[in-house]
Amino acid sequence: MSKKELKLGAFFMLPGHHVVAWRHPEAKAEHVLDFDFIKEQAMTAERGKFDMVFLADVLNAGATTSGFDQQCSVSFEPFTFLSSLAAVTKNIGLVGTVSTTYTEPFNVARQFASLDHLSKGRAGWNVVTSTGEETAHNFGQKETKHAERYERAEEFVDVAKKLWDSWEDDAICFNKETGQFADASKVHTINYEGKWLSVGGPLNIARPVQGHPVVVQAGSSEAGKELAAETAEVVFAAWQTLEDAQKFYRDLKGRMAKYGRNPDELKIMPGVYPIVGRTEEEAQLKRQQLLDLIPEAAGVARLSAQLGFDLSGYPVDGPLPELPNIEEVNGFKSRFQLVKEIADRENLTIRQLYQRIAGARGHREIIGTPEQIADQLQEWFENEAADGFNIMPPVFPTGLNDFVDLVIPELQKRGIFRTEYTGSTLRENLGLARPVNQFSKESVESK
Amino acid sequence: MSKKELKLGAFFMLPGHHVVAWRHPEAKAEHVLDFDFIKEQAMTAERGKFDMVFLADVLNAGATTSGFDQQCSVSFEPFTFLSSLAAVTKNIGLVGTVSTTYTEPFNVARQFASLDHLSKGRAGWNVVTSTGEETAHNFGQKETKHAERYERAEEFVDVAKKLWDSWEDDAICFNKETGQFADASKVHTINYEGKWLSVGGPLNIARPVQGHPVVVQAGSSEAGKELAAETAEVVFAAWQTLEDAQKFYRDLKGRMAKYGRNPDELKIMPGVYPIVGRTEEEAQLKRQQLLDLIPEAAGVARLSAQLGFDLSGYPVDGPLPELPNIEEVNGFKSRFQLVKEIADRENLTIRQLYQRIAGARGHREIIGTPEQIADQLQEWFENEAADGFNIMPPVFPTGLNDFVDLVIPELQKRGIFRTEYTGSTLRENLGLARPVNQFSKESVESK
Repeated sequence: MSKKELKLGAFFMLPGHHVVAWRHPEAKAEHVLDFDFIKEQAMTAERGKFDMVFLADVLNAGATTSGFDQQCSVSFEPFTFLSSLAAVTKNIGLVGTVSTTYTEPFNVARQFASLDHLSKGRAGWNVVTSTGEETAHNFGQKETKHAERYERAEEFVDVAKKLWDSWEDDAICFNKETGQFADASKVHTINYEGKWLSVGGPLNIARPVQGHPVVVQAGSSEAGKELAAETAEVVFAAWQTLEDAQKFYRDLKGRMAKYGRNPDELKIMPGVYPIVGRTEEEAQLKRQQLLDLIPEAAGVARLSAQLGFDLSGYPVDGPLPELPNIEEVNGFKSRFQLVKEIADRENLTIRQLYQRIAGARGHREIIGTPEQIADQLQEWFENEAADGFNIMPPVFPTGLNDFVDLVIPELQKRGIFRTEYTGSTLRENLGLARPVNQFSKESVESK
Repeated sequence: MSKKELKLGAFFMLPGHHVVAWRHPEAKAEHVLDFDFIKEQAMTAERGKFDMVFLADVLNAGATTSGFDQQCSVSFEPFTFLSSLAAVTKNIGLVGTVSTTYTEPFNVARQFASLDHLSKGRAGWNVVTSTGEETAHNFGQKETKHAERYERAEEFVDVAKKLWDSWEDDAICFNKETGQFADASKVHTINYEGKWLSVGGPLNIARPVQGHPVVVQAGSSEAGKELAAETAEVVFAAWQTLEDAQKFYRDLKGRMAKYGRNPDELKIMPGVYPIVGRTEEEAQLKRQQLLDLIPEAAGVARLSAQLGFDLSGYPVDGPLPELPNIEEVNGFKSRFQLVKEIADRENLTIRQLYQRIAGARGHREIIGTPEQIADQLQEWFENEAADGFNIMPPVFPTGLNDFVDLVIPELQKRGIFRTEYTGSTLRENLGLARPVNQFSKESVESK
């Protein structure tokens, strides 16, 4: 590779990222939970040579939030969704969001290992923690504190890596003559005893093709940044301005040295919500069409969710009320801060603010011709603000088609994006090394 | 359908059901965790018009059992495995074994619902509980008692059904004009509060295509039979003789009336381990080849596991030692009893006994020509011993190919097995009704 190339994720959210994408003329009810439709989208993303399909996730229907009935709150579960796509794609990575708060590490490590084998090395795990009372109640629990969730998450990722390593790469000998299937000295119990987790092991599946599935994170709170610097290989982030993105990029990469890691071992990929037109006018028209879809209640509900503060009683054409201090927020701290900054900086009303964040959910909206969009992506990519982007089409299939058919060729023409897949695993395509097994003789001796 | 047809499951265990199938000349190391291989097997089963692929599961590698290194103890995880197969098949059902002991009902109900949507109505759940210290240790727990596991299982299935029903079939209105995505009055919290489980709901996915995925069970202990009579739609069982199978069949179907159920609402499908030859001699030769593969230690370990009693210290060509009373067994009670009965009835040594159960793991072995095998299946089917069978090929791919190419045509010729799929869902193919939603107005008013 002569020139550095950016990395791209295709962020799947059906029928689209716009808050009421389902109201768009193109959206169809039968697309919401249809395998044939997601298969077509995954094949489009693979045709565009995306590094990965990325699937977000939550563990509740949002039934307790206002505006519930106006939003699409049903979706596929990540492991089942990505495994079905593994069967009908060849090269694209498959990244699923899975919470560490209400799951068991043995089950999660095993499901990712299984997905990695099924896909021949294309699995990735977006590690998240789960917030909110509705979610807690779905698991018979009370909501846990931010710090506790992160402690458990850190242990959880540690346990998962040990379980993936519990079978060394050459543990299966398959010696028919001697009758030895496995070399038991290369299969390890992990006997993990942490503050939150206790796990024996070994796992009941061979080490993943990639060693470990690619570990992805999105949190950009202090605790989130430390965890990412220590363990993440890809970070999704939400930034509106080049300066903020650069600051985050330097901050995060700067924290890695103390964990013995090189900055290249982590790819930062901010979210981008592109509205592509063949002309500027067409792009602006598409944008207006999207804004006009938003019912007031849904817009206010979305903004309230982003802030963790119920705005439903306030005049929609007035300013934001006084908000709690960030230290008191027990939800998405970084998302709260980001939205509040936009409001303060641009002096927006509640309506203007929800229109501003409704589609992209706090991510960066880029509107224009393929060249204009490529310019903006290139600017961030070449100025230490991003190693790539997670593309969030407003509406499927058109938003994805537009990006693949119009923007990707422009990026390829500029030599900053691949024209063919070069690796056979997600890890190889991202330029990430295959982890050494922590239990192997070589690894233990070097300690 | 003029004549009653039997139901068939294809029990996938790779590389085969024989205890050391991996040593068979046909078995290949690369088949153990290879998607292309399982895809080929699923397509073969679908070509044979099987009702379902069935996948067993355990939550441990068996690393603490003797003979561990001689057995294939790595395999795909059920949800990922079945979802990948959903993408490459059209008609065959996809039944996964999932434990209720170390999982959360919200996650499991959701994954089955997602699989059911992805496969357009072909999901089934073999409900099991998990035993053993190695498994408990993988989840930071001590082993639980048989009765407690069943209590939790009963609550778990109840919760899952409520979660599947939490979205009524017509809850999604997708009214673009009014902006109403869902009718909130048709989306229900379940607020379940049991002895073991507490779950709020609703689920974050629409009601499964089948209403509920098909509920399958295997337990044949007293507690298992009661649970099956109340909730199961398919029961897998292990019986050696027509008399025992008939007794079980009558017993189980007789228990259904007190739960307001009709005997037809439950299909009993015993396991069958077929060794098919074009001649009797060929079949016997295949059988001997399989027996010769078993290393002594692996055979004794398998038998010990079946009995929950370590036989490794006893002379292998001597009789079984005195075994504990069945009331003291905290594992697979029914399997223990079955094996003990074979030993007592036929006066077998430990070696003879492990050779007898090694392949079929306590299920019924049928050896012979396609006609002979069809005769035996038909006898059970027509004499109230079975509604169908779960076929356990000794080695893949040949064992499955033999059954599909030689035995299925014989069953079809006799008019007791389908020549084409008639339903579009697993439920329809099995002849099971789609459950009424317990929260729908019609359902509530009839109470």
